[in-house]
Amino acid sequence: MSIIASITVSVDGYVTGPDDGPELGLGRGGERLHYWVMGGPWTYGGEHDFAMSDADKAYYEPLVARLGAGIVGRGMYDAAGAWGGANPFPGTLVVLTHRIEDQPDPANGFHFVNGLDHALEVARTDAGHRDVAIGGGADLIRQALRAGAVDELVISTAPVILGAGKRLFDGFEEDVDLRIRSVHPSEWAVHTTYDVLRRPDG
Amino acid sequence: MSIIASITVSVDGYVTGPDDGPELGLGRGGERLHYWVMGGPWTYGGEHDFAMSDADKAYYEPLVARLGAGIVGRGMYDAAGAWGGANPFPGTLVVLTHRIEDQPDPANGFHFVNGLDHALEVARTDAGHRDVAIGGGADLIRQALRAGAVDELVISTAPVILGAGKRLFDGFEEDVDLRIRSVHPSEWAVHTTYDVLRRPDG
Repeated sequence: MSIIASITVSVDGYVTGPDDGPELGLGRGGERLHYWVMGGPWTYGGEHDFAMSDADKAYYEPLVARLGAGIVGRGMYDAAGAWGGANPFPGTLVVLTHRIEDQPDPANGFHFVNGLDHALEVARTDAGHRDVAIGGGADLIRQALRAGAVDELVISTAPVILGAGKRLFDGFEEDVDLRIRSVHPSEWAVHTTYDVLRRPDG
Repeated sequence: MSIIASITVSVDGYVTGPDDGPELGLGRGGERLHYWVMGGPWTYGGEHDFAMSDADKAYYEPLVARLGAGIVGRGMYDAAGAWGGANPFPGTLVVLTHRIEDQPDPANGFHFVNGLDHALEVARTDAGHRDVAIGGGADLIRQALRAGAVDELVISTAPVILGAGKRLFDGFEEDVDLRIRSVHPSEWAVHTTYDVLRRPDG
C-alpha cells in the first residue's frame, strides 16, 4: 500500500494562480494548469466537455485504478465546490479540516477528519490493499512530505509560467532524494512520478 | 536562428543549493542537479569520469549540434572556474558582466560583454545561422525571458528536492505561455523543451 501525492504545477512551481477559491477554482490564469484534465482550453465560466487526451489517460487511468481512497485539504475541497456534492474519486475522500462539524452526509463519499495522522489512518483503512492518493492543496502535500508519509510524488507540469499564485514548495526547506519512476508526456503536461527515497537515519 | 535558454533545476525549482560559487560549484547538495551531466553520482572534490548516459545524450547532443554561440552570466562563469580557462562549448561563449576589463585572452573563446542586448547581438553575429544558448545563471534567464528574447526554454529537472539555494523563477512575476516541444527522460533528469509563445500584444 503506497501513499501517492499528486498535483499539477506550472513550470515556475505554482499550483494555482492568484485568487484561487470557490469562485475562481485554480485562480486567475490557473485554468491552464488543467488543460490536461479537460483535454484542452477551458474557462471557469464556460461549458466544456471533459475529453482527456489519450496521452494523458495513459498516465491518469492506471493511477486511478490503483487507488482505494484519497485525502485532500479543506481548501481544495472548498475550491472544487465539493465536486458538486459527491466524491468522484475511488473510495472515500478524506477531507483534512479543523471544522469537522461541517461533515456532509457520509453517503456522498466525504469523511471530514482533523489531523494528518488521523486522515492517513482513515484513508489507509478504507483503501485496504489499494493505494491512497493525496491530492493537495500544496500545504497538505508539504505537510505529508515533512512527515515522511509520501511514498510516491507525482508532479504534472503544465506548459505555463504563471508568475504568481500558491507555490507547491513555498516555505519547504527539507532536502529529499527522489528517483524517477515514470514519465508520461502529453500535449498539455509532463507527468513525472518519483519514488521518495528514505534516508538511512530517516 | 533561435535563442535557447537551458538550465537544470531541482523538483522544487532551485538551480543551485546553498553556497554555490567557485568553491562549491552548484552549492551544497547541488551535485545531484548534474548527475545527468556526469552519468551518475559525483562530488566536487572527487575524481569522476564524464560518462553521460545514452538517454541524456539523446537530449544533449542534438541540442549542442544546433549551437553556434552561447551566453552565460558572470556568476556562472566564475562558479564554473571558467571551465578550466578554455570554453568547451561551440563558438564563442559571451560572458555578461559589468567588469569587462577582466576580459581573458579571446583565443580561449570567452567574450566579456556588458548588457544583455549587446550580448545577444554579439552571440547572434557569432552564431550565424546556428542557434544561441543562454546557459544561466537564473538571473540571466529571467532577464532574457522578461526581455522577450527567449525562443525555447529547456528545463532539465533532476530528481531531488533541495529545500534551499537559488531559485530559477525567484522574483519572476510575468505570465508566459509555453508549448511542449519535446520531452527526454533519463534516469537522472527529465529534459523538457518548451517553445515560448508570444502574446499578440507582446
